[in-house]
Amino acid sequence: MNKFINKLYQAQAQNKSLVCVGLDPNMGNINTLGLDLFSWLVNIVDAVSNHVCAFKPQIAHFSALSAENELKNIIAYIHEKYPDIPIILDAKRGDIGSTAQQYAIEAFEKYQADAVTVNPYLGQDSLQPFLDYADKGVIALCKTSNAGSNEFQNLTLENGKTLFEQVADNAANKWNANKNLLLVVGATYPQELEKIRSIVGDMPLLIPGIGAQGGDIEATLKAGLNENSKQSGLIISSSRGIIYAGKYQDDFADKAKEACLDLNQQINDFWSI
Amino acid sequence: MNKFINKLYQAQAQNKSLVCVGLDPNMGNINTLGLDLFSWLVNIVDAVSNHVCAFKPQIAHFSALSAENELKNIIAYIHEKYPDIPIILDAKRGDIGSTAQQYAIEAFEKYQADAVTVNPYLGQDSLQPFLDYADKGVIALCKTSNAGSNEFQNLTLENGKTLFEQVADNAANKWNANKNLLLVVGATYPQELEKIRSIVGDMPLLIPGIGAQGGDIEATLKAGLNENSKQSGLIISSSRGIIYAGKYQDDFADKAKEACLDLNQQINDFWSI
Repeated sequence: MNKFINKLYQAQAQNKSLVCVGLDPNMGNINTLGLDLFSWLVNIVDAVSNHVCAFKPQIAHFSALSAENELKNIIAYIHEKYPDIPIILDAKRGDIGSTAQQYAIEAFEKYQADAVTVNPYLGQDSLQPFLDYADKGVIALCKTSNAGSNEFQNLTLENGKTLFEQVADNAANKWNANKNLLLVVGATYPQELEKIRSIVGDMPLLIPGIGAQGGDIEATLKAGLNENSKQSGLIISSSRGIIYAGKYQDDFADKAKEACLDLNQQINDFWSI
Repeated sequence: MNKFINKLYQAQAQNKSLVCVGLDPNMGNINTLGLDLFSWLVNIVDAVSNHVCAFKPQIAHFSALSAENELKNIIAYIHEKYPDIPIILDAKRGDIGSTAQQYAIEAFEKYQADAVTVNPYLGQDSLQPFLDYADKGVIALCKTSNAGSNEFQNLTLENGKTLFEQVADNAANKWNANKNLLLVVGATYPQELEKIRSIVGDMPLLIPGIGAQGGDIEATLKAGLNENSKQSGLIISSSRGIIYAGKYQDDFADKAKEACLDLNQQINDFWSI
């Protein structure tokens, strides 16, 4: 099994959790706590680390703040202190091969992420430089959680498939020689999730859209879980609903932990290991 | 007319050039010149600035080197020394709205780019935070220059259009309230370029793929030029073919200028203002 996917499933078993906490800092408000960005992140990470299967820093939120060093440092901190928890860099990169190679270096060498999200619009050759890192995970957008995802992803092709089904088909049957590919499917679309699960077999799926975006937990798990609970097939990601559960009050870390445990419990009504 | 597009056409008229020079640094080799990255970039920019209509730094090449400051500094240098030449940040960003907002801040506020490239796979709501910057340019991928672009972009929908034609249609007819939208079309696909031109009217198109990637100049110009030569409709981008024309020899800047002038001349056999 691919090293990232193996690490993910080990963490799910160890922490009895499918929850991935997204790290999307908003410095303007963090400042009101009198904390620097890195300290705030450490507080969140320490609070939830026993109850997650992955962390997912979103790179735009760091880059907009010129906080590349803080991103690098929090990833290094997690690797050092919680070496069993994999880190997904949410970057949604996509470019032609020679440039994709630079983006792969950014994600896997500069930031030392275990996995990265990518955009499939440019086709397989744009994903190959990422896929060539056989120990890493590559998580391609398939059906995204936003309302506007219908505009192209749900268009029907002349072969009768929707575009998102074609992406899932190519991902499962053409691109995955290294068995290190995963897909992004929004919790806001459980019917599409069910279709994608039927196309990709037991491929793990990263599921954003729970919480602030309105995705339903029961529908998501019924549509997306694998039968083999040790290889659940799901990574349920929540960002704002956890890290800002306590807003910018002094007990923000406790509140984040509570929100994480609460989500974990809601999920574990439908999944156990 | 949108501020970025106006600046672009003014630069095309002033320098009699449709050439956009892509800045894709490769630090390993630049070091052999005994120059730091910023100095190398300044040498290239100074050498070609009278013969271009835009500069296009590619962000992955900077980020992979942890050279965010050099990217910021070369953009500031161009704005200061060549205020009439617009800067396109080639980043191909695409994410849901709240994150797209952060990427827009990255491109337009942190780096102060005049325009940015974006990926349309997530639909209009993912592009809107960029489009809301009405003075800036937003350049969406439509038909990319790589071989793999056929995998999805050329699929036929049940309405008879290809996916890239649907992207062009939505771009021209749904997304462009601020008249600040452009599209990326690879020079490697002149037939697709001709179709896109027929869909989008006089919308400017960013054309990579000339030079190293094999795109043909005559076919590109015949397929893509507008009839109004003052609003050519084209930005012809070349990166490696210009900035590495002299490889890593001491005369690299002179060789870049020669390559830029040569490309400009080849283009101006088919376009004059």
